[in-house]
Amino acid sequence: MSAVAVATTSPAPDTRQRLIDAAITLFIRHSFAGTSLQMIADELGFTKAAIYHHFRTREQLLTAVLEPIIDRLTAVVDDAERQRGVHARADRMLNGYARLAVESPMLISVLASDPSVHTVLKSNREWTQMISRQMTLLADVHPGPGGFIRAQFVFAGIAGSADPKRNADDDWLHRELVDAGRRALGLRTPRRTS
Amino acid sequence: MSAVAVATTSPAPDTRQRLIDAAITLFIRHSFAGTSLQMIADELGFTKAAIYHHFRTREQLLTAVLEPIIDRLTAVVDDAERQRGVHARADRMLNGYARLAVESPMLISVLASDPSVHTVLKSNREWTQMISRQMTLLADVHPGPGGFIRAQFVFAGIAGSADPKRNADDDWLHRELVDAGRRALGLRTPRRTS
Repeated sequence: MSAVAVATTSPAPDTRQRLIDAAITLFIRHSFAGTSLQMIADELGFTKAAIYHHFRTREQLLTAVLEPIIDRLTAVVDDAERQRGVHARADRMLNGYARLAVESPMLISVLASDPSVHTVLKSNREWTQMISRQMTLLADVHPGPGGFIRAQFVFAGIAGSADPKRNADDDWLHRELVDAGRRALGLRTPRRTS
Repeated sequence: MSAVAVATTSPAPDTRQRLIDAAITLFIRHSFAGTSLQMIADELGFTKAAIYHHFRTREQLLTAVLEPIIDRLTAVVDDAERQRGVHARADRMLNGYARLAVESPMLISVLASDPSVHTVLKSNREWTQMISRQMTLLADVHPGPGGFIRAQFVFAGIAGSADPKRNADDDWLHRELVDAGRRALGLRTPRRTS
C-alpha cells in the first residue's frame, strides 16, 4: 500500500487514485519509460479511454505521481534551511529524507532511482532547483567537491535502501538510515534528535 | 566513452560493439524497459534487420551489455572472499566496487539503478547468487539486520555517485567513495590500502 493511497479519506480510492497507484507499481517494475498507458489500463482492466479522461499523456500521470512526494520533500528542505548552523541543517535534511524513504519507499525509488524519471525531472525548473537546494544542505558540511560527492552518496544510499517489500519496523529502519548517513557525512549524533 | 569500448582493440568498434555502446547510452536515458531495438537502430541509422543479425531479443542485448561488468564484479567478489578477516574482506569488496563504479559509471548505473534491469537480474540464478555474495561481504561487518541495511546503503551510495558526465579525477573520486563507504560501515582506514 502506498503512502498516497493511505492519504485518501474515501473508503475505496477513486479512479484517479487507482490509476496513480497502478502507475507507481508498474513504474517500479518496468521504469517510467517502460510503462505505457495501455499497460496501466490492462493492469486495472480499464479501457484506455477511461485513462484519457484523467490523464492525456504519460507525463501528466508521472507529474500526478511525483507531485505529492516533491511537495513533502520541499517542506523538508524548507524546514532544514530554517535551522541554525550547517550541521543542524544537514541533520534535519537527512532525518526528513530518511523519513520520506521509510514511509514512501516506492515513491522515493521512482523519484531518485529511475533514469527515465531523472530525464523528466531535469526539464522542470522548479524541481531542479528544489533538488539543488536539497543537495546543498548536505554538501555544505564539507565545502568543496568532496562535499557534493558525499551528499550524492548519502541520498542515493538512503533511496536505494528503502525496500518496499521489507519486513522491518519503520522507526528502526529510519534510525539505521540516519545513522549511516551521519557517519558517511561525518556528522556527530546530536544530543537531542528531532 | 564506455569501458567496454576502451576494451576493444580494433581502431573502429565493430557493429556488435557499436550496438552494445548505443544500447548502454539509451538504457541510461530511457531505462532498459523504455528502450526498444527500433530506438537503438534509429540511434545508429541501422535497419532493425542489422540488429537482428546480432541480437534476436532485447534481453540478449542486455545480457551482452551486463556480462562484462558482472564478470569483473565476480572477480572482485572472488578476490575479496580470499582475504583473511571480516574487515579485510569488506574493505577489499568496497575498494573493488568503487573502482568499477569510477571506471564504468554507465554500466554500474544500468546494473544497480535501473528497476527494469533488476527484474531481469533476479531471473538469473547465477547473477542473484553473485549479488548475494557481494552483499554478504559488507553485511558481515555488523551481524544482524542492521548490517544488511548498511551494505545496501553503501552499494547504492557508490552506484548513485558515479556520474558518467563528471569532471573529476578517477583516483580522487575512488578515494572519496571508499572513504564514505568505510565511514558508513564503521571500517577503520587500513595502514596499507590495496
